[in-house]
Amino acid sequence: MFTRIDHVGIAVRDLDAAVDLYTSLFGLTVAGRETNEAQGVREAMLYVADSPGGASYVQLLEPLGPDTPVGRFLETRGEGVHHIGYGVDDVAAALASLADQGVRLVDERPRHGSLGAAIAFLHPKSVGGVLTELVQAAGVSPAP
Amino acid sequence: MFTRIDHVGIAVRDLDAAVDLYTSLFGLTVAGRETNEAQGVREAMLYVADSPGGASYVQLLEPLGPDTPVGRFLETRGEGVHHIGYGVDDVAAALASLADQGVRLVDERPRHGSLGAAIAFLHPKSVGGVLTELVQAAGVSPAP
Repeated sequence: MFTRIDHVGIAVRDLDAAVDLYTSLFGLTVAGRETNEAQGVREAMLYVADSPGGASYVQLLEPLGPDTPVGRFLETRGEGVHHIGYGVDDVAAALASLADQGVRLVDERPRHGSLGAAIAFLHPKSVGGVLTELVQAAGVSPAP
Repeated sequence: MFTRIDHVGIAVRDLDAAVDLYTSLFGLTVAGRETNEAQGVREAMLYVADSPGGASYVQLLEPLGPDTPVGRFLETRGEGVHHIGYGVDDVAAALASLADQGVRLVDERPRHGSLGAAIAFLHPKSVGGVLTELVQAAGVSPAP
């Protein structure tokens, strides 16, 4: 089901400082910045490498306010890894298959993610404490 | 500096149950199992995809006892993402460059990691709360 590690989502207090850190220390480059009001974050995708069906990224996430998922995460856990995104060829089909196996879903249907991807989250209680995201990259169509 | 996301290191209480979860739900396959006494873990590497300079994996980590780094992590944080490993071409050169930039190192010199890799950890205080590992895959020689 998983075609790659699409991204590591990291909760940060200061997006610009975090972008500076990852670009200066590790030589990563910014592939895109956007604000996702629905998820309550301002974010940057930093390109790491090409991978099957898409690329892999470090995703830096700054909350738009304290009463957002990432804001609450920072309050209780501090800065650190917030979730892991894995590539899939067809996010709707993957969701249906996982629901059939009893996995608890955060998103019943795909929604809009970074860089135009279709994404959906699985509940960490069904995945060993890891908030897990399925990512169908933009331009990747499910097989007919 | 980073050539890929080499692996996501996940702390688990029961390695066999976690392997069953990732293989049955997501179709990952076990690339290797080993016990690393120095790091105090029993672990499995689950293959996700090929990537530049190596492959990418989910690494499942069960502590050998409570008084180990992963044992203490489970006690305070519960199951979840423990660290992120990134591929590098030359772990010794990467460590030297990062030390020059003032990054706090956990390992001053490369040591033995999973699947024969040479690895080193950077301190989370220097990387926005993320325990970060550099991984030079086995069979990858630094350029002369």
